[in-house]
Amino acid sequence: MSQANISESEVDIVIGALHSDLTLFMNEWRPFFLRFHIIIVKDPDLKEDLQIPEGFELDVYSKSDIERVVGSSTAGLFSGYSCRYFGYLVSRKKYIVCVDDDCFPARDNMGNVVDALAEHLFNLKTPATPFFFNTLYDPFRKGADFVRGYPFSLRSGVDCALSCGLWLNQADFDAPTQALKPGVRNLRYVDAVMTVPVRTMIPVSGINIAFNREVVGPALVPALKLADEGKLRWETIEDIWSGMCVKVICDHLGLGVKTGLPYVYRTQRGSAIESLKKEWQGVKLMEDIVPFFQSLRLPQSASTAEACVAEMAKTVKEKLGQVDPLFLRAAQAMEDWVKLWASVASSTG
Amino acid sequence: MSQANISESEVDIVIGALHSDLTLFMNEWRPFFLRFHIIIVKDPDLKEDLQIPEGFELDVYSKSDIERVVGSSTAGLFSGYSCRYFGYLVSRKKYIVCVDDDCFPARDNMGNVVDALAEHLFNLKTPATPFFFNTLYDPFRKGADFVRGYPFSLRSGVDCALSCGLWLNQADFDAPTQALKPGVRNLRYVDAVMTVPVRTMIPVSGINIAFNREVVGPALVPALKLADEGKLRWETIEDIWSGMCVKVICDHLGLGVKTGLPYVYRTQRGSAIESLKKEWQGVKLMEDIVPFFQSLRLPQSASTAEACVAEMAKTVKEKLGQVDPLFLRAAQAMEDWVKLWASVASSTG
Repeated sequence: MSQANISESEVDIVIGALHSDLTLFMNEWRPFFLRFHIIIVKDPDLKEDLQIPEGFELDVYSKSDIERVVGSSTAGLFSGYSCRYFGYLVSRKKYIVCVDDDCFPARDNMGNVVDALAEHLFNLKTPATPFFFNTLYDPFRKGADFVRGYPFSLRSGVDCALSCGLWLNQADFDAPTQALKPGVRNLRYVDAVMTVPVRTMIPVSGINIAFNREVVGPALVPALKLADEGKLRWETIEDIWSGMCVKVICDHLGLGVKTGLPYVYRTQRGSAIESLKKEWQGVKLMEDIVPFFQSLRLPQSASTAEACVAEMAKTVKEKLGQVDPLFLRAAQAMEDWVKLWASVASSTG
Repeated sequence: MSQANISESEVDIVIGALHSDLTLFMNEWRPFFLRFHIIIVKDPDLKEDLQIPEGFELDVYSKSDIERVVGSSTAGLFSGYSCRYFGYLVSRKKYIVCVDDDCFPARDNMGNVVDALAEHLFNLKTPATPFFFNTLYDPFRKGADFVRGYPFSLRSGVDCALSCGLWLNQADFDAPTQALKPGVRNLRYVDAVMTVPVRTMIPVSGINIAFNREVVGPALVPALKLADEGKLRWETIEDIWSGMCVKVICDHLGLGVKTGLPYVYRTQRGSAIESLKKEWQGVKLMEDIVPFFQSLRLPQSASTAEACVAEMAKTVKEKLGQVDPLFLRAAQAMEDWVKLWASVASSTG
């Protein structure tokens, strides 16, 4: 596994705009975003015009663009936090980096501003090591290596397909935790990246991620929409679901998922107490979702992310369909998504 | 899973003395060691008298004590780094903390001296969460919690049986890595503790560990001795082997293993180049050891660590016996150890 070089022209930054004024957001990220092409997808439910400062190389997609590309019957997939998935769909780049619009550059323990883009791309270009745990974390970071006892045959690793970053200040809790501990802030900058071991399931947050679109793009699927889904992170689990899809597919295809650095600084928004008035649907569903994905095995014949998602959709229908009709809709969305991915690829490729 | 309180009287510190002058070592650790009872086991190959400063509550065991307790035919198990296992055997305490005699208290990122004892005991008394990954690391640390998507049914966790600490300065590399990168120092203090996921194998280093002796003591077994084993860490893999035994047993019994904090500061000793003149036996053996333990499953009937080790010994003989006669001797040592553990327990209990 040689370390891949990533050129800036291979990367799209995708931003889902849930708020109309992106001025502060874009200006804070300016020094880091400037090198890259940016795709901004406006939440189709957002009425106001977007405010975006000058000076970036970017394409903006809004409701009419979404309907034009996917048809008005499928456009519903892309509301709220799921609007970003439209950016994944229309991007023609190999790599995607995606950050929520309420996040700003973080500072490390030395007070230096973190270049989250560079750190994500480093994670993606260096190998992942899912088959054995390295106690000193990422062996490919400067100053690190494999520890005594680490088999040499496993040291070359596998390609990393997904890099999950973290959040300082406002952590990514669910509504009950947020309501119970409204004052808790994540202040601990943990200076580590690690590969999530094979067959270990992880709650991937969509707040701050990067991935190899070419190999796992179709697995990042906007499938699970809660009945009463809102516009706050803790009112969604669409990213958790698609993260489980990606992890199972990476395990199946021999790819890696990393978690840890980079951090972003996340600001507070919304009232968790208000969110509590909604049903705890997401929290309840996780009790079925986790065992399902933990035991899910894909057939050897599924050798691409598209094929894996299509296989998964069938199993979701079979195994989770009777638990909640939401899962039937998720399975349907996964099937639609795979077709959409193929048709958009063929029309623009 | 409630958090257990650990009283100082339930803890033994076990030190394997591979060097006769423990003055600096004991004095550096004095503020932290003073609260606890200490067992020092002198490497039976060490000729000089031990130098130990005054003021500690301790018992020292030497070659004659080992022979008296285990018989002269079995005493060979306890040479070199394996002398510490004699301390595990004769301790009557519930918890053991064990640190190599070339390690000193480390400093954290703020410059504060780390109380490794307190941090190990915190790891052991708070639950482990092996069944799902928490992206913000140990949810039981101050200021941390479970992230969005973490199933509530898994949040109570399981008992933690083993806490694996890390090392600043001199990292725990094997001889080839150490020879290739003699100047590399581990300078990164990663402020995190995490549970090693179920079914994930980890190279447990014996340099800085703590464990619940009552539940997994018999699994820390001095079984695998290299043909040309020396007195340097990188010339041994006895701890890696016993760590794999513990991990498989914890997975089987529904217990947890944590890794991360606390750090110790490890000083340099010996020449890796000299070690390279020996055969790379440990490095080669790991290629067989890792897949063996990854696929090892224990019968439901094995419900204690003793029973698990006895079962493992049989499988080691069957599956690894023909690979290298060293594994036959390891299996024999595991059988001897389980008997020894029972007889010492009955004679002192």
